[in-house]
Amino acid sequence: MDKIVRINMSDLTTSTEPVPAEWVGLGGRAMTSTIVAKEVPPTCHALGASNKLVFSPGLLTGTAAANSGRLSAGAKSPLTGGIKESNAGGTAARMLAKLGIRALIVEGIPKADKWYSVHIAKDAVTIKEESELLGKGNYSIVNQVQTRYGKPVAVVSVGPAGEMKMLSANISVADPESHIRSLGRGGLGAVMGSKKIKFISIDETGVPPVMPKDAAKFKEASRIFAKTLLDHPVSGQGLPTYGTDVLVNILNEAGGLPTRNFTSGQYAAHDKISGETMHDTIVKRGGVPTHACHPGCQIQCSQIYNDKDGKYLTSGFEYETIWGLGADCCIEDLDDIAEADHIMDDIGVDSIETAVMFGVAMEAGVLPFGDGKGVVRMLRDEIGKGTALGRVLGGGAGQLGRIYGMTRVPVVKNQGIPAYDPRAVKGIGVTYAMGTMGADHTSGYAVATNILSVGGHVDPLSKTGQIELARNLQIATAAIDSTGMCLFIAFPALDIPECLSSLIDMINAQFGINLKGDDVTALGKSVLKIEHQFNLDAGLTKEDDRLPEFFSKESLPPHNVIWDFTPAELDTFWNF
Amino acid sequence: MDKIVRINMSDLTTSTEPVPAEWVGLGGRAMTSTIVAKEVPPTCHALGASNKLVFSPGLLTGTAAANSGRLSAGAKSPLTGGIKESNAGGTAARMLAKLGIRALIVEGIPKADKWYSVHIAKDAVTIKEESELLGKGNYSIVNQVQTRYGKPVAVVSVGPAGEMKMLSANISVADPESHIRSLGRGGLGAVMGSKKIKFISIDETGVPPVMPKDAAKFKEASRIFAKTLLDHPVSGQGLPTYGTDVLVNILNEAGGLPTRNFTSGQYAAHDKISGETMHDTIVKRGGVPTHACHPGCQIQCSQIYNDKDGKYLTSGFEYETIWGLGADCCIEDLDDIAEADHIMDDIGVDSIETAVMFGVAMEAGVLPFGDGKGVVRMLRDEIGKGTALGRVLGGGAGQLGRIYGMTRVPVVKNQGIPAYDPRAVKGIGVTYAMGTMGADHTSGYAVATNILSVGGHVDPLSKTGQIELARNLQIATAAIDSTGMCLFIAFPALDIPECLSSLIDMINAQFGINLKGDDVTALGKSVLKIEHQFNLDAGLTKEDDRLPEFFSKESLPPHNVIWDFTPAELDTFWNF
Repeated sequence: MDKIVRINMSDLTTSTEPVPAEWVGLGGRAMTSTIVAKEVPPTCHALGASNKLVFSPGLLTGTAAANSGRLSAGAKSPLTGGIKESNAGGTAARMLAKLGIRALIVEGIPKADKWYSVHIAKDAVTIKEESELLGKGNYSIVNQVQTRYGKPVAVVSVGPAGEMKMLSANISVADPESHIRSLGRGGLGAVMGSKKIKFISIDETGVPPVMPKDAAKFKEASRIFAKTLLDHPVSGQGLPTYGTDVLVNILNEAGGLPTRNFTSGQYAAHDKISGETMHDTIVKRGGVPTHACHPGCQIQCSQIYNDKDGKYLTSGFEYETIWGLGADCCIEDLDDIAEADHIMDDIGVDSIETAVMFGVAMEAGVLPFGDGKGVVRMLRDEIGKGTALGRVLGGGAGQLGRIYGMTRVPVVKNQGIPAYDPRAVKGIGVTYAMGTMGADHTSGYAVATNILSVGGHVDPLSKTGQIELARNLQIATAAIDSTGMCLFIAFPALDIPECLSSLIDMINAQFGINLKGDDVTALGKSVLKIEHQFNLDAGLTKEDDRLPEFFSKESLPPHNVIWDFTPAELDTFWNF
Repeated sequence: MDKIVRINMSDLTTSTEPVPAEWVGLGGRAMTSTIVAKEVPPTCHALGASNKLVFSPGLLTGTAAANSGRLSAGAKSPLTGGIKESNAGGTAARMLAKLGIRALIVEGIPKADKWYSVHIAKDAVTIKEESELLGKGNYSIVNQVQTRYGKPVAVVSVGPAGEMKMLSANISVADPESHIRSLGRGGLGAVMGSKKIKFISIDETGVPPVMPKDAAKFKEASRIFAKTLLDHPVSGQGLPTYGTDVLVNILNEAGGLPTRNFTSGQYAAHDKISGETMHDTIVKRGGVPTHACHPGCQIQCSQIYNDKDGKYLTSGFEYETIWGLGADCCIEDLDDIAEADHIMDDIGVDSIETAVMFGVAMEAGVLPFGDGKGVVRMLRDEIGKGTALGRVLGGGAGQLGRIYGMTRVPVVKNQGIPAYDPRAVKGIGVTYAMGTMGADHTSGYAVATNILSVGGHVDPLSKTGQIELARNLQIATAAIDSTGMCLFIAFPALDIPECLSSLIDMINAQFGINLKGDDVTALGKSVLKIEHQFNLDAGLTKEDDRLPEFFSKESLPPHNVIWDFTPAELDTFWNF
């Protein structure tokens, strides 16, 4: 029986209720955004008792559908001041789904200055005071919690950054090998920290598999769907072989790889940090170049990256992180970046926000461009330990910019702009500006059509067609984020008709319903509008749907392009 | 001949132009807000080249009118994101007015990483590169500049905080004794720092006095006006004797003295920091209890406060500073507060913003409540030197709150709430919420009518009548701020009819015009509306016209009152 579980941290009680009628059929982002919009006062303090932290597995999570294991978390964001959903792989979503928990809603704030864990099993939800784990990193937490239970329970945790309510703090979730995946751009880790929950553990022991209403139909649709993932060159070849870091050379070639705090679109040392170099390094050192971040993933773009001695260094080593510390901070040594990635996972900070912040910090003179050892030291000894400098660095790019009086600060809605320069990839620029989440490439990945010619081609340097592209992708993404599917299914979905039809067939077979393509589009539109309204009610305005001034004033080499959308043009995004 | 002087820091040129027709008759805040609204793009980066820093003397500045020597500065605020005007005494306004300069507009940003001074004399405006003065405090700047010119030129400067573009940085202006007055809440010092101007010096040598069109009428009106200042008990007795610090005991008695980061309305040690104690201390140590901050001031609420050895320690030692470090930070030693005041003047930070910030920092555990020596050390060695901790502390209360994840952060539009708790003095709460400047008691001093029974009496604990009170006071204040008059003329103006009529008579006699009382009200309304529209265009919304959540949730002893205005009630403020 599907249910909603509530954790009330103010009085340390838990409760279970049936899924209300209006939430039936929602999952992932559709569920978290609907609950946040309904239950969180938009103007509340994001770190106060009125905010709620909502976890939800996707509609298809827990089934045999490939790539369906994403966990969504939602809340009011302390970074953007608006609504936030972020999702990641790992094992937690699947276990929640198998337990029938469609949403886990964490409410309130403890009265005492104590820290807690929440353990979720088949027949009980238990809040327990924790103290010995305070200050521990995420790797240590996963290890100790799984040791405590004697089995690979799912672990959702915050590191020291979340405990300290830093605005770059994210939420970590253990993957099948007990390594760390991350959700929570927008400071969701600070929200979890404000509720004084160090970790949530989930034990699926004793629950049966999730069965579809129409098993035969589901199996057939699932087979077709999985084949489309294998057949598309991006999800079937590029990502499995090189991981997301395959994009370094592609974006550099396109002149859209933001370099040295967004002053150029090309990085001279791109070869040193490219996916090709990473792949060869991993193979040479006995790492794992192709690896699944959650059970049932077929694309397997994750990897295990070892150090020079062949010892585990990091995993889930993504393009955006490598771009950010590499090109944007001019750090040429991939091992330094990998070590930084490991520390960021361990202390629990968003690697995009943190890398963008370091780019601004380097321009501000806090440390030199290219200082990889300095970044590693500051992550470990300053941010991780919450020194004054660590507090300065831990609040993200926008905060760093305000603290040092910088004018070149690449953020939208106070969230750092990721790895694609909006001047040279204008479609993603529209997504950054208009997205409900702040600057977020995953909310409408126009890079696909601008650069990779997936789903057709729209000239990245021209304004023509970009708003429609970003709008359609954001609508589709809001729907995909609700299924529990990894966003990378979008590549085949944009090019191979059977991908989307088989996805809808799986949903229909699972629930015994009869969704059409239009229903999925309607869901995506509905989610976006709910999120947009929350933001407006929270006090955000059209002026928050803009890129920073410097993108319109400084031209980006090598194409020497500026950001040239007018406010009126951007505002047409919402005409749907 | 009246004129506008422009300083273009991008190409290091200056120019002079006649006052355009639409700006004739404007002065002070009316002038700065009109120019900022017309010439500064509301969405520009406040520390970027598109912002402009505007100085303007008031309409009556430079004349023989009592208390008319205020200097206004205006710009887009990097702290609030909206428009900002701030004014102070000192000698600069009078000299600008005598030179016929109705507005000094600083534009652009230098291309080179060099620092400059601007010298204004009868026949020339000169930009000069400065380097030896970089890093120097305001006291040192005034001393060295006046030594350079061999006479008491007016000096407008920024300290190290302004150089570092800290959001709490203000602008300093020398008083007749070469001590420091301050303008620039809202980070105007950071704006001046962004334009790389260390100081502006003004030499009035060779210019004749400002003469009225109708000298006899002016003289008679001026006499009547001056007499009303002497006749009113607040401006004629309370302020001259005890300074603004007379308010400590009054607000404590009223239960509206925010204590220990706004957790109580009474401070047990209020006697140790009261105006009465300060007065006795000053007299005992051979200081000056009654002192004018600008030439022609009759109220003379400033003072010179000596240390235990009878040596100069600080001046312009105001209630809000003493409240902030005293009651709000629980520092009982007035000498510690005086030393802190001196350092804040010297490094150039807003003492209200900084004191409110320390209250939040103490709640966050950065230093203990009551640690006066710690505050002095942090001002001098951290903020003043721009260490990482100094950067954390130098950005004001809102920034400190975000950095430490605090929920009890008393700011409106990111500007610290001054010395009157809005729960126990509800009229000033309306001013904090609705004011165009962020939380600013001087923009509509409802304390007068709520607590001092000036201009009638409105019960401070009741909502009744407060919105109308705050609206009328804000309109009147916007007009007064345009005359160059000290706001303290409002006390007689509210109670003695001849005060306002003689003020209008002086303006009419000075310019040979025929203003009525309604014209003055219309000017005030017009200024407020211009400012409000700028804020809306900059992206501020109704949600920025609100007090922080905790004022509505935590009741304030001893009256155990909460802030209970609804959003709809507050929004009626703008119905005029």
